[in-house]
Amino acid sequence: MSSIRDVAKLAGVGVGTVSRVTNNSGYVAEQTRKKVEAAIKELGYEPNEMAKSLIANNSKIIALILPTIHHPLFSKFAYHVEQVLNANGYKLLICNSNFEVEKELEYIKLLNKKVIGGIIFITNSNINDYLSENLPIVTIDRHLSNEMIYISSDNYAGGRQAAKHLLSKGCSNLGFLGGFPNVETEVHKRKQGFNDFLTDKNIPYTSFEEEDVIEDFDKYIEQFWNKHSSLDGVFAVTDILAYKLINYLHSIGKKVPEDVKVVGYDGIDLFDISQTKLTTIVQPIDIMGEAAAESVMNIVEKKKVKHKYILPVELRQGEST
Amino acid sequence: MSSIRDVAKLAGVGVGTVSRVTNNSGYVAEQTRKKVEAAIKELGYEPNEMAKSLIANNSKIIALILPTIHHPLFSKFAYHVEQVLNANGYKLLICNSNFEVEKELEYIKLLNKKVIGGIIFITNSNINDYLSENLPIVTIDRHLSNEMIYISSDNYAGGRQAAKHLLSKGCSNLGFLGGFPNVETEVHKRKQGFNDFLTDKNIPYTSFEEEDVIEDFDKYIEQFWNKHSSLDGVFAVTDILAYKLINYLHSIGKKVPEDVKVVGYDGIDLFDISQTKLTTIVQPIDIMGEAAAESVMNIVEKKKVKHKYILPVELRQGEST
Repeated sequence: MSSIRDVAKLAGVGVGTVSRVTNNSGYVAEQTRKKVEAAIKELGYEPNEMAKSLIANNSKIIALILPTIHHPLFSKFAYHVEQVLNANGYKLLICNSNFEVEKELEYIKLLNKKVIGGIIFITNSNINDYLSENLPIVTIDRHLSNEMIYISSDNYAGGRQAAKHLLSKGCSNLGFLGGFPNVETEVHKRKQGFNDFLTDKNIPYTSFEEEDVIEDFDKYIEQFWNKHSSLDGVFAVTDILAYKLINYLHSIGKKVPEDVKVVGYDGIDLFDISQTKLTTIVQPIDIMGEAAAESVMNIVEKKKVKHKYILPVELRQGEST
Repeated sequence: MSSIRDVAKLAGVGVGTVSRVTNNSGYVAEQTRKKVEAAIKELGYEPNEMAKSLIANNSKIIALILPTIHHPLFSKFAYHVEQVLNANGYKLLICNSNFEVEKELEYIKLLNKKVIGGIIFITNSNINDYLSENLPIVTIDRHLSNEMIYISSDNYAGGRQAAKHLLSKGCSNLGFLGGFPNVETEVHKRKQGFNDFLTDKNIPYTSFEEEDVIEDFDKYIEQFWNKHSSLDGVFAVTDILAYKLINYLHSIGKKVPEDVKVVGYDGIDLFDISQTKLTTIVQPIDIMGEAAAESVMNIVEKKKVKHKYILPVELRQGEST
């Protein structure tokens, strides 16, 4: 396939001149235009089709709204979303909401005005009231309405697996280290699965959760441990909490996994920079990203859609249990 | 400020109906339209201005092209770029190039066709030939031409600081652990600064670099150490290489910093999940992201631009030296 550069070279002009000819924009001398057109014909050069379709149709722009792209789980998710979108001629807008509803609503307005074609949402906000039905929106770990597509990992099964695993490793004093469950999301099911597995077996456990958004993780971990220092097995609701707990335990002279066993949830890939490999429930982030991208494209293209994806998780044995 | 929801509530209709009225799209009964218009007037509601400006003008869409968003340095950079762009009514497209030139060129075409307003580029590709002059492009750590704006941290000063620091900690057998410098980028200056500081003092050092893109980091680290196992001080060209070296040294029974001292470069924030806090040369990624966003907006808006930003770095003392 010929490039704009090949055309420019053959016509003996700059790339900008070829661009002005193909776009019919800006001044080009008649003789130059003829040279460029001859080169285009000779090389069979076709100005980028995708660009044309984007000009005609902003529906090929999809926004991904997430709390922050600077998080290893979200940036991996965004990577896979973009790969699928790009392969299909779509483009990805990123929005860091920082949990600000106003910023999220701005993108819903863009969608209502057809400036963008769809939204993939990772949010804790109460945005239901702002959403009219049948909008091309896909939510992750959040079930906003029956009409809306949502994708999550199997949080419930993951919670059960964590409980089963800690028991199988001989733990007898179990704890759940949660986050800040201020809205109802699918993430709650991690605790529910953990709870149900243990309750079925009449095994007690302690639970620690914070009402508000956690500002100081280190202090939070310290509070947790001060209150529950006799635990020998902990299921932390995210990998980051798990890693922070492990580092805290090391700092007070506790050994992991000898004294305390820790299971996380997420399976974040951190380039192996942590010295203790975490035992964790791995979400299939690549598949979740691909499913999100495909779902939103299917709505935009008015194809058949599946409304619910609960993707299987897997326990990965590390060195923390 | 009133929201579309307020209008819908006052008019006694759904949000979608208000949207159809303000967009003049789709069927709305005449009586309903009047109710909505009355509510809009009463509340002083203004349909989002930014959305209008984006419809009129795609120059407010900026693309960030980087090898992968799933890298802690790049995702932090992207976060800060998006924050500044968004505050100014711009939107951010993300493209994972995976070092594929074709994908990068696609975005240059979008720029040539004014489908997007500007590009912030993190690339190792030889794309000079494809770029006409005066395009709204900002490059990071890469000096493509005198006309193009580029932003980097002070790599040279960082290399000098690393050498000085290792000497001050008593190291006498120094090494440089590089990456794959297949194109000329500003990153080379890390080695140059390290070299110049030591050469000025007539202190020898060994250097290890790979010609091709590194596929297997662990093997690469092992090769390095097998060849240079007598080193007691290493400057690794990135934090990830430094962390991998530290983990490798631990795995073969070497103590950091007692046996070997390691300095990295980047200052990536990994939520403190590593147990050994790295001594590293910290790039001001937030300021670099902000400068990139402001520069590209300045070109789009035809304001005065500064062509070169070399931002100061700082050595952060950790536990690895």
